[in-house]
Amino acid sequence: MSTVKSYAALDQHSPLVPFTFERRALNPDDVQIDILYCGVCHSDLHTARNEWYNTLYPSVPGHEIVGKVTAVGNEVSQFKVGDIAGVGCMVDSCGHCNPCEEGEEQFCENGFTGTYNGPLFGGENTFGGYSQRIIVKSDFVLHVSHSESQLAAVAPLLCAGITTYSPLKRWGTGPGKKVGIVGLGGLGHMAVKIAHAMGAEVVLFTTSQSKVADAKRLGADEVCISTDPDQMAAYASKLDFILNTVAAPHSLDPFLNLLKTGCTMTMVGAPAEPHPSPNVFGLILKRRSLAGSLIGGIKETQEMLDFCAKHDIVSDIEIIPMNYINKAYERMLKSDVKYRFVLDLSTI
Amino acid sequence: MSTVKSYAALDQHSPLVPFTFERRALNPDDVQIDILYCGVCHSDLHTARNEWYNTLYPSVPGHEIVGKVTAVGNEVSQFKVGDIAGVGCMVDSCGHCNPCEEGEEQFCENGFTGTYNGPLFGGENTFGGYSQRIIVKSDFVLHVSHSESQLAAVAPLLCAGITTYSPLKRWGTGPGKKVGIVGLGGLGHMAVKIAHAMGAEVVLFTTSQSKVADAKRLGADEVCISTDPDQMAAYASKLDFILNTVAAPHSLDPFLNLLKTGCTMTMVGAPAEPHPSPNVFGLILKRRSLAGSLIGGIKETQEMLDFCAKHDIVSDIEIIPMNYINKAYERMLKSDVKYRFVLDLSTI
Repeated sequence: MSTVKSYAALDQHSPLVPFTFERRALNPDDVQIDILYCGVCHSDLHTARNEWYNTLYPSVPGHEIVGKVTAVGNEVSQFKVGDIAGVGCMVDSCGHCNPCEEGEEQFCENGFTGTYNGPLFGGENTFGGYSQRIIVKSDFVLHVSHSESQLAAVAPLLCAGITTYSPLKRWGTGPGKKVGIVGLGGLGHMAVKIAHAMGAEVVLFTTSQSKVADAKRLGADEVCISTDPDQMAAYASKLDFILNTVAAPHSLDPFLNLLKTGCTMTMVGAPAEPHPSPNVFGLILKRRSLAGSLIGGIKETQEMLDFCAKHDIVSDIEIIPMNYINKAYERMLKSDVKYRFVLDLSTI
Repeated sequence: MSTVKSYAALDQHSPLVPFTFERRALNPDDVQIDILYCGVCHSDLHTARNEWYNTLYPSVPGHEIVGKVTAVGNEVSQFKVGDIAGVGCMVDSCGHCNPCEEGEEQFCENGFTGTYNGPLFGGENTFGGYSQRIIVKSDFVLHVSHSESQLAAVAPLLCAGITTYSPLKRWGTGPGKKVGIVGLGGLGHMAVKIAHAMGAEVVLFTTSQSKVADAKRLGADEVCISTDPDQMAAYASKLDFILNTVAAPHSLDPFLNLLKTGCTMTMVGAPAEPHPSPNVFGLILKRRSLAGSLIGGIKETQEMLDFCAKHDIVSDIEIIPMNYINKAYERMLKSDVKYRFVLDLSTI
C-alpha cells in the first residue's frame, strides 16, 4: 500500500479539494506509475458533478495519464522501471468475452473497469489520474515513445486521441478520401491532426469564423462555416466520412446530407439532451448511416500512440497546476481552452 | 405509338379512374411488355394522393410489373418475344455517374427515371404498371424464371423483394447470423422469407400477437412481441442485423439496443412524421449504426429474382381486378392485406 495525494470531488456540489488515499500493494502483474501529467477531459467534469447520475464519492477523476514506471510486479516483462507509460480510460475488463478476446475491451460484455469511478457493474471505486501515482494491471498500460519534451501534450492522446483515431481508421480515412470533422474542441482538434496525418483531405466544420485560421494550422485543407447554407451546399454528397465531435444538441441532417452514397457520420459526443431526430428519408435516399464510437481497445490505443509518435502528433495544450482544476472546469464550460488542459502533477 | 388502357389518378382527391394514353413507339433498345400482373405498393397510394407533394397528374402508378414480351427493338439481344419479363421502380438513369457505373442506378446522381411519376429532376411524366402495356429500355428489364403459375406472386418482388434483399445481403445476412425483422407487412413478410432462405436465424418483431403463427409459417425462427419489455430484454445485444420495415413513427431505441457491438439497424420505410430521436449514447456505447437503404440496382434486382426463383420464394398475395384498386387502397391503409395486392391486368 502507498499513500498518495490527489484532488477529489467529495460531493456533486463542491469544488475539488486535496484528498489523500491508499493505492493497493503491487500485484505480480501490476505496473506502478508515478504520474507526470494528466489531461482534463469533459468526462472528468461530468463525473465530478454527477451529471451522469453514477458518481461514487469521493471521486478522483483523470484518465489521460502519462508517467514514469517506478515499480513492476514480478510477472511483468513488458515494462521496466524508468519507462514512460500511459494509462487511458480503462484499467481492467473481464478478458474472456468476445469483445475482450478481440481486443476491444471498451465493449467488454461484463463491463470494463474505468480508470476512475470504478467498474460499470459493481465492485469498488477506482481513483484516476488527478493523483501522484497509479497502480495498473500491465495489460492496460501503454508504451509512450514520444520525446521527453512532449509528454504533457501526449497525455490527451489517451482519451481524445483514441476516441478520434479509432473511428477515423475504422471508417477508412486515408489518401483519396474527403473527410469532414465537425467541431474544433479537444476531440475535434485531435481529429483534424490525425485525419490529416492519415492522408485524407480534411474539411473542418465549425460555427466560429474565429476558428478558421487555427483549423488550417492544425491540418484542415478546408474550413466550412456550418451555419452558412451556401458554404454547406458546396459539400452536398461530397464527403466519404464525417466524424462529429459536437456533444451539444444540434440538427444532424445538414451534415448527413454531405455524405456520399453509402457513407457514414459517426458521433463521439453524447448530448445531454437529444439531437433533433434525423431525417430517415435522407438516410434511405443515399444509403447513409449514423453511427457512434467509443474510445478504442488497448491494442488500438497502442497503435494510435505509435502512429502519433511517428507523425509527431500531440495535443495542443495549456499546462496548469493541480490547484487550478476548478478554474479550469469553469473555463472548459466556456470552451475557453486551446485545446486541452493538462495537469502538471509535480504541483500537487 | 400504341394506345393503352390504364387506371389513373387525375388529381389528389379523386379515386383512380379508367384512363387511356399512348405509349411511345419502340426505340431500337426498347422492350415492349404486355403486362400480366402489377403489385400494389404503398408508394402507389402516396403518389396517387400527392402525399409526397411531387405528383404529376394524370398519374398511373405501379412499379411491380410482370408481363410477356411482345416486341423488341432491333438492338435488343437479351430479350425475345414470348419471354416473361419484369420491371421494377426504375426505367432509366444517366448511365455515366459513379453509382450508375457501379450498377447502383437507384443512387444515380442525375436522378433515375421512376417507372411512374417521371424523372426526379425534370423531363416528362412516366406511366406505370396499372396499364395494359409498357415500353422500357432493355437495360432496365428483368428476366423472370419462376414458373408460369407463380407470376402474379412474383410481381411484388420487383419492389418489396429488392427493397429487403439488398440490405439483408449488404449487411451480411447468412448462416450463423441472428437477424431481426421489424414489422410483418408487405416488406416485412418478404424480408422474413429472404433472410430465412439466406440461412440466417430470423427473429420477427411485431406488436400483434395475431401475427405470431403467420410469421413462423413464413420462415421466422422466433417471434418477439415488441411491446413486451420482458420479451425484448431477452434479445438485448443479441442481433447481428435488424431490418426495420415499419414506416409509422416509433421509438428506435428498443430495437437499437438489441444489436450486438458494431452492428446496424437499417430502415426501409420513410415515416411521414419523424421517429423520436434515437439515443446517440446507445449508438456510442456499442458502436452501433442506424442506416437507410433504397431498393437496389438493376443487376442486384436480377440477382434477387434468380435467388427467389431458386429458393421458390414469392410474395403472399391477394389477386384483385383492376376496378378494385380504390377499395384495395382503403384496405391497405388498415393493413388489411396478407401481404400484397396484385392487379390482374387482364381485367382492365
